Amino acid sequence: MEEKEISQAVIGRLPRYFRYLGELKDEGVERVSSQELSELMKVTASQIRQDFNNFGGFGQQGYGYNVEFLYKEIGRILGLDKKHNFIIVGAGNLGRALGNYMNFERRGFIFKGMFDKNPELIGEDVRGVRIMPLERLESFVRENDIDIAVLTIPKASAEEVAEKLAQNGIRAIWNFAHVDLNLPEGIQVENVHLSDSLMKLSYNINRYMHETGTE
Amino acid sequence: MEEKEISQAVIGRLPRYFRYLGELKDEGVERVSSQELSELMKVTASQIRQDFNNFGGFGQQGYGYNVEFLYKEIGRILGLDKKHNFIIVGAGNLGRALGNYMNFERRGFIFKGMFDKNPELIGEDVRGVRIMPLERLESFVRENDIDIAVLTIPKASAEEVAEKLAQNGIRAIWNFAHVDLNLPEGIQVENVHLSDSLMKLSYNINRYMHETGTE
Repeated sequence: MEEKEISQAVIGRLPRYFRYLGELKDEGVERVSSQELSELMKVTASQIRQDFNNFGGFGQQGYGYNVEFLYKEIGRILGLDKKHNFIIVGAGNLGRALGNYMNFERRGFIFKGMFDKNPELIGEDVRGVRIMPLERLESFVRENDIDIAVLTIPKASAEEVAEKLAQNGIRAIWNFAHVDLNLPEGIQVENVHLSDSLMKLSYNINRYMHETGTE
Repeated sequence: MEEKEISQAVIGRLPRYFRYLGELKDEGVERVSSQELSELMKVTASQIRQDFNNFGGFGQQGYGYNVEFLYKEIGRILGLDKKHNFIIVGAGNLGRALGNYMNFERRGFIFKGMFDKNPELIGEDVRGVRIMPLERLESFVRENDIDIAVLTIPKASAEEVAEKLAQNGIRAIWNFAHVDLNLPEGIQVENVHLSDSLMKLSYNINRYMHETGTE
């Protein structure tokens, strides 16, 4: 199936479809209509059909979609049928939380290395992966076919580390540092700015309190 | 200034403006034009003006905006001039990472309590806050004016805990559990689905490799 240029908004919704379809599959559900999926996911059925049409529609025939097929196809589109080696730079609590998250492995993301500048942490172990000094970062990325680097370091050093990673062939950066990275085209960046997310929550609390007079 | 209903897309961009303006302020910059802000943030100047017009435009007069004024105004819109007490449910690595993040305090988010079901963790301390058993959750929320609960627990228990929080007067949930919560209207939910974010990254890697023939 030929895939045309898909908007990032559509791409951003695919993991959620994948999650719901995985749950249906685990429950033994074989077919699902766009109407049922719509009620479950609280989006309109026409949004679902429109999203799926970007990928040829996934052949809804007779009653609804084949759950197993749809789950596999969306997984394939997301690249989850391939393996991606990743490293984590920054062995603080957040880095460790991500390193310990087993589910990434199930999706084909293989945890290969962890780095920190703090000498006291070197040699420690996070789920079988040794923490190495930052000086080892560049050669390790080159020699171990690393696709993805997770940055869980303060913003002051994030830009410099990201540039080193870019020069050594990294394909993507999952950035938790509180800064927007400027990297060469072709290096994918996905930002998780946690403070931004909390501020959005704060806005919505205050707007609601204001509207309902519960300040 | 009367605030009309603002789209969540605009709200979602405010924290990023706030971040850049804070940096300009720290650098001693007094005025900034939408053109300069545009180059810095890599969004169009017309997008910036359009976003700001939702709030009356912030009075760009002569040369550009007053940085300090704009920073304060956006902070006020985001509710950062008010204090919000928060608790964290789930004392694993991710919960601890968020508990240890000092910057939240600077923005008015006050860390008040931490809860876990694991008896071995009870009584431990995260940045001066004691870990309490889950049985204490409901009374603590009622008695300590808690606005926000951060959920860093597995999805199996997230729905049940969220319902208890809702029944005891929580205003907002910052949800890191890998499930969409169904809560009464008026309770604000902001989801951080980390796996979804990683899958989006995976899609973009694979699309790029496909396009450039570097698979």
